[in-house]
Amino acid sequence: MSNATFEFSELRKDPLVERWVIIAASRGKRPDQFKEEAETKPPGFCPFCGGNEHTTPPEIWAVRAPGTLPNTPGWDVRVVQNKFPALTIEADLQRSGIGLMDRMGGFGAHEVIIETPDHEMDLAVAPLEQINMVLEAYRQRVLDLRRDKRFRHIVVFRNFGAAAGASLPHPHSQLIALPIVPQLVKSLLSSALEHYSRKERCIFCDLIEQELAIPDRLVLENQDFLVLSPFAARGPFELQILPRRHMHDFTLMSEHEQWAFADILKQTLMLYRDVLKNPPYNMMLQTAPCAVPRPGHPEYWGTIEYDYHWHVELMPRLTKQAGFEWATGFYINPVSPELAKAYLRGEIEEPQAASA
Amino acid sequence: MSNATFEFSELRKDPLVERWVIIAASRGKRPDQFKEEAETKPPGFCPFCGGNEHTTPPEIWAVRAPGTLPNTPGWDVRVVQNKFPALTIEADLQRSGIGLMDRMGGFGAHEVIIETPDHEMDLAVAPLEQINMVLEAYRQRVLDLRRDKRFRHIVVFRNFGAAAGASLPHPHSQLIALPIVPQLVKSLLSSALEHYSRKERCIFCDLIEQELAIPDRLVLENQDFLVLSPFAARGPFELQILPRRHMHDFTLMSEHEQWAFADILKQTLMLYRDVLKNPPYNMMLQTAPCAVPRPGHPEYWGTIEYDYHWHVELMPRLTKQAGFEWATGFYINPVSPELAKAYLRGEIEEPQAASA
Repeated sequence: MSNATFEFSELRKDPLVERWVIIAASRGKRPDQFKEEAETKPPGFCPFCGGNEHTTPPEIWAVRAPGTLPNTPGWDVRVVQNKFPALTIEADLQRSGIGLMDRMGGFGAHEVIIETPDHEMDLAVAPLEQINMVLEAYRQRVLDLRRDKRFRHIVVFRNFGAAAGASLPHPHSQLIALPIVPQLVKSLLSSALEHYSRKERCIFCDLIEQELAIPDRLVLENQDFLVLSPFAARGPFELQILPRRHMHDFTLMSEHEQWAFADILKQTLMLYRDVLKNPPYNMMLQTAPCAVPRPGHPEYWGTIEYDYHWHVELMPRLTKQAGFEWATGFYINPVSPELAKAYLRGEIEEPQAASA
Repeated sequence: MSNATFEFSELRKDPLVERWVIIAASRGKRPDQFKEEAETKPPGFCPFCGGNEHTTPPEIWAVRAPGTLPNTPGWDVRVVQNKFPALTIEADLQRSGIGLMDRMGGFGAHEVIIETPDHEMDLAVAPLEQINMVLEAYRQRVLDLRRDKRFRHIVVFRNFGAAAGASLPHPHSQLIALPIVPQLVKSLLSSALEHYSRKERCIFCDLIEQELAIPDRLVLENQDFLVLSPFAARGPFELQILPRRHMHDFTLMSEHEQWAFADILKQTLMLYRDVLKNPPYNMMLQTAPCAVPRPGHPEYWGTIEYDYHWHVELMPRLTKQAGFEWATGFYINPVSPELAKAYLRGEIEEPQAASA
């Protein structure tokens, strides 16, 4: 873009509620372009496919065959900057207040984890080795970015299907590193801290124990992980993957645990694919922030090592958020988590058909 | 439905964050039915059209021609219970805890405000009289429902277009009365209270003053209302309608103000229709809750009369919520609120084209 005025991104805080937004004007389009995003791309061309490495921003990290060069073929998983980043590392982290308003410069990182050179690969049926390489990309990128002390939180997520916000169908995940801890993550951290302060126990570990005792919502398990249909699921067939072992940070997984995670993730995606017939979905990694700032101790972590527990959220996009959700932060879920579990496990034929 | 097991609704609180969901199993469908909701309806038949009154649940309120009977033709605006209610007034408001989990019975009300007998009416170009009748329906239903002291908050919203969650295209709004104050509303109330406690002023009144002084985000105004492109808009072309006069509760509008509100709402919807080419959108009324419970004073309102200020939020559905939003509560907005204002007012040709 030629006009600098429109290249800025900034972070803005709502003056009325604790909610930040990224104003990412470099991603701007005409209003009539929003709907047909997919169609505006040259048909048949995919920048993420093997052989098109020169069409993406430069490679940041990759699993590569020995002797191959960056930005050429020969890779299995490849990480690049997002071509239309919501935040950039070059931006100034200048903070300012304008009357009631608060803003800061659009400092951050926005990367794309291209999960395979193969456009048609489906992560649910990919070899375990491929899934494990994707997880390794998550881990390596998070570890690397955490070295920059200006980052406070790193979000890894995967959008599958256009209705889930994926603008390109080629299998990929994304990562956004933020200069602040987002509100929803703060809420999770506060609940965990509060529970720990009162009970000296991790709330997630307690939850796991409670859910294993009455397995109405236990969908899958292996030796290191379990998959729950959450008690207060925000939508039909939302699932939560939790490690059995207490870990606040997903990069602490042992090599063995990472393989077990690849296995349970594959099984979960297979359920979505086979039982729900391949719905669009979002996958979100919830792990500890980079550092928990406290007054006078900018990097004091408190009890986070003991009170927080990393996990993954998976949300099929089967219902639409409407006015009620926007107004309240409430969700209406038409499938109870217990029926969702029973349906996914093949214990009933359809969620409402037990009487049939 | 024949099986009572599947008729229950309940409210559940997430054990990890302050977030309630309605598990509304009576709205349950098979997973493969979610996508084709519109197509499963008999083509050409609309229960909300004039002449089909017998196909809806019984009429609760209506503007009717003298001498016509409820549930027959002859109405201009008609309110009925939602046929697939998320919450019902018959349900027991039983509260219980199950270990870490909290639930209560699915007590509440879920009504549909059918805005006209005419399937093809577009609220943006409807006569002002019709819009005013719709607002009167909102007001009358809220006033009536507030008499039931078990309700804590009433949400009025309008979903326009399938992508905004409207399952029927016939013009309608909805109302949900809740036994709790939702988290997002609580956040608004807390911010307002905190600001008032420190400054003895309404934060919304302060915001209005600030926005009128530098009108970069002032989209429309008439003598009683103004329309802002909010500083931290959650999405492209989000707008906020605020009364100039301080009022915590929208039912306090004078007759004159209600006409002025009808006028500004119509102008706003016209902008969406003409400038944005009729996008799907959600409209949300944010007004004071029924009562603010305080320890020992279940109906003590505190300073809410002075600190809170009702308003309307309008959100065109031009971007998709994806993994990042689910994970963080953050939003990425690709159109800056200042450009959105300029584009809506015809001051620039396209949001990113000022350099062209």
